[in-house]
Amino acid sequence: MSQRNLTLLTDLYELTMMQGYFKEKDANETVIFDAFYRSNPGGNGYAICAGLEQVIEYIKELEFNSEDVDYLRSTGLFEEDFLEYLLHFRFSGDIYAIPEGTVIFPREPLVKVIAPIMEAQLVETALLTIINHQSLIATKTARVVYAAEGDGVMEFGLRRAQGPDAGIYGARAAMIGGCVGTSNVLAGKMFNVPVKGTHAHSWIMSFPDELTAFRSYAKLYPKACILLVDTYDTLKSGVPNAIKVFKEMKEANIPLTSYGIRLDSGDLAYLSKKAKKMLTEAGFPDAIISASNDLDETLINSLKIQGATINSWGVGTNLITSKDCPSFGGVYKLAAVLDRKTGEFNPKIKLSENAEKITNPGNKAIKRIYSRETGKIIADLICLEGEVYDENHSLLLFDPIETWKKTHLAPNTYTMRDLLIPVFQGGKCVYESPAVMDIQTYCKKELDTLWDESRRLVNPHEVHVDLSKPLWNMKNQLLDNYHFQES
Amino acid sequence: MSQRNLTLLTDLYELTMMQGYFKEKDANETVIFDAFYRSNPGGNGYAICAGLEQVIEYIKELEFNSEDVDYLRSTGLFEEDFLEYLLHFRFSGDIYAIPEGTVIFPREPLVKVIAPIMEAQLVETALLTIINHQSLIATKTARVVYAAEGDGVMEFGLRRAQGPDAGIYGARAAMIGGCVGTSNVLAGKMFNVPVKGTHAHSWIMSFPDELTAFRSYAKLYPKACILLVDTYDTLKSGVPNAIKVFKEMKEANIPLTSYGIRLDSGDLAYLSKKAKKMLTEAGFPDAIISASNDLDETLINSLKIQGATINSWGVGTNLITSKDCPSFGGVYKLAAVLDRKTGEFNPKIKLSENAEKITNPGNKAIKRIYSRETGKIIADLICLEGEVYDENHSLLLFDPIETWKKTHLAPNTYTMRDLLIPVFQGGKCVYESPAVMDIQTYCKKELDTLWDESRRLVNPHEVHVDLSKPLWNMKNQLLDNYHFQES
Repeated sequence: MSQRNLTLLTDLYELTMMQGYFKEKDANETVIFDAFYRSNPGGNGYAICAGLEQVIEYIKELEFNSEDVDYLRSTGLFEEDFLEYLLHFRFSGDIYAIPEGTVIFPREPLVKVIAPIMEAQLVETALLTIINHQSLIATKTARVVYAAEGDGVMEFGLRRAQGPDAGIYGARAAMIGGCVGTSNVLAGKMFNVPVKGTHAHSWIMSFPDELTAFRSYAKLYPKACILLVDTYDTLKSGVPNAIKVFKEMKEANIPLTSYGIRLDSGDLAYLSKKAKKMLTEAGFPDAIISASNDLDETLINSLKIQGATINSWGVGTNLITSKDCPSFGGVYKLAAVLDRKTGEFNPKIKLSENAEKITNPGNKAIKRIYSRETGKIIADLICLEGEVYDENHSLLLFDPIETWKKTHLAPNTYTMRDLLIPVFQGGKCVYESPAVMDIQTYCKKELDTLWDESRRLVNPHEVHVDLSKPLWNMKNQLLDNYHFQES
Repeated sequence: MSQRNLTLLTDLYELTMMQGYFKEKDANETVIFDAFYRSNPGGNGYAICAGLEQVIEYIKELEFNSEDVDYLRSTGLFEEDFLEYLLHFRFSGDIYAIPEGTVIFPREPLVKVIAPIMEAQLVETALLTIINHQSLIATKTARVVYAAEGDGVMEFGLRRAQGPDAGIYGARAAMIGGCVGTSNVLAGKMFNVPVKGTHAHSWIMSFPDELTAFRSYAKLYPKACILLVDTYDTLKSGVPNAIKVFKEMKEANIPLTSYGIRLDSGDLAYLSKKAKKMLTEAGFPDAIISASNDLDETLINSLKIQGATINSWGVGTNLITSKDCPSFGGVYKLAAVLDRKTGEFNPKIKLSENAEKITNPGNKAIKRIYSRETGKIIADLICLEGEVYDENHSLLLFDPIETWKKTHLAPNTYTMRDLLIPVFQGGKCVYESPAVMDIQTYCKKELDTLWDESRRLVNPHEVHVDLSKPLWNMKNQLLDNYHFQES
């Protein structure tokens, strides 16, 4: 058992900037930071947000101990008054966030931090690390589960995860995204989610022969008897030996409830069809045929099209690392600074050489708009906090770039829901995270609010994320002002 | 601070197999497992092994507490006698490993575990998770550092890492692979490696204007004054304001030791050349021009070719996730089982539909063969433990597949070195891990033992990994025997 303190899990510049705020300006200046992302990973039509529970834990435990401060002193970058301040540091701000398992889209604030600038700045790095990772894996999982068309998908990636946490919290995110279980025992214990597994080649190899190894396994685990058939030769040795064992179980009146084979190499389409035929002819048509070996949503999709008879999928490396797109790209940007005199937030904007890096300013809320008829998402509307909408009135939406593209919603044809909910108020946590399996159930419902066109794996339809008129006006005024100053 | 116990960081099947060994066979049977990998990540010509220190910590702390056992009981899979056994479980075996920072090649055992089968089986998953992750990032870093041609490369990826550990141990591996520093403060503290950083856009945005923000930063950090110039407009605002501040520092007789600018968006080739010209004309030809923004070895290489004037590189996402190849693919396979009667190890082999998945059997050692003249690696030779070689004799190497390809080494033209060293003996750790910065120094020397042709980024020359004649014979006899049984 080792102690773990993540307070220093931050980029150095957060601390040097904090010292700067402490020395050079009003360190208690209240600011708003938004965490958001710019594009969906892997060409997907949406993302699934995850990681909030761990962000909450991190914020709650944020505390510099004397060892941390001694280390910071040793870098020679920090002065004593600032180090003394750190010893008494606690998070005292407000945080709003979109609940885990929610379907999300680019540019929406997933987490909004309203806090003294010192505090809001410090939490940037760890908050992004956690949200980026878990949202990435939850989103990837949703893709894989979609491709499996109702078959169970198991998370088997721990050994290829990018370190222990990537395995542990990756498994958590995979469960949120729809896996039926994980091989990761620690994740099972920590998050109370189903753990699954069969056996390895080493089990077979440690016995004198395959048949003896299968018999021993069946004797021990008759209720979950999935035999790995590719250690020596899948069709000539593995499947025939598995059939022999299933017959012996039948003869001994052992109920064959959850039993079958696992394929881990070779041509899975061919082998699964051959194995299915052999199992069926031997009287085992309901045997599970599970497969593993570098699977992902594209391969599963292809195997389905080829008529593979696999009905259970163990997905490892490609899921736990989100191999085709291993980072989520969430960022954390200053959106407003409180003017103490007026009590109003002054909006802030970040320009950039790259147009898509320009931020949305101000204290924002997100309204999700659903069709009353279908329950599907029509669009999301990023607006300013305090804007009031009435579902009994009509609503005009417009594209924030191509503003002539307008959508008119008639009264009582739509419903609206606020996506951001309070998580911390005045430094106190006011939100209780649901159990992971409850988040999974919620996430399934969330996915049902997407049109099929937005869920498909390739070239999905993009869901509209619009800006309200007041927010759009604020943003354009800031852009205009900047160019005016410049000239 | 939270407690951390990684004993359950394992795939469920390790535990169900352990119970199987416990119930069905001699649980104390001594076996040998090898951890090795099958191909170099990202088309590289070699890999760098890393993570051994954390594997050692994991093995030392391996202990099921009553909470762990209660959890396992709750799964309904385990019987009381086995759970009781777990409560007293300790690792009692031997481990040999290649030291961290060593250049390694496919199919070489990186870690060899000789232990009772229960123990050797349990450690598989966590050992692979740790070694796979750190070796991946160390290898990726070596590529990036190679592309930077002597410029400093900083690890800036924490916010995009796959969870906290991926950030922490990824930074450790990046330092081993050759980074000059990391932004990750916790990694700096844990591993005593340099921490680096500048400031974020939010620093600029929180001040009334860019010039004020720069002045405040320069006042606070005159000794490491790198100003981020792309918040509003790099060439029209950022660079001119930075020059203004450097002039003010000069006039105030503040020594400009380590100072310059950071570019984080836009066309880095164009902007760096323009900025260099502006800085030089203003009397600051030695200003550092650092760059970040989704860099990797390919982009750095391209920027070098384009004549970009960047001389310091901050590499984030693509390094910390090894984006083009985010998994290392190390595996852990049974190689031999001790015959109690004879006291000899019976070699074991895993066949497969996929030829490259066939394992090397037996209790093995690795000899690295260097040219006496150049100090460069000629080849690696995987042999059986106990084989004796004499550098005063000639040596005949042959390709294990195309066996007619032979290399003859004349006496006294080569030197040999054993790669595997003892790490645990009878459950006791007998190895002290070097400091990370010492591993970095060692790794630099290791990289010097490669020919340039094996270091280049694209289509590198493959270093030969041969099998000794006794090992080759053993392997082929096992393959022949298997096919004989089958027919």
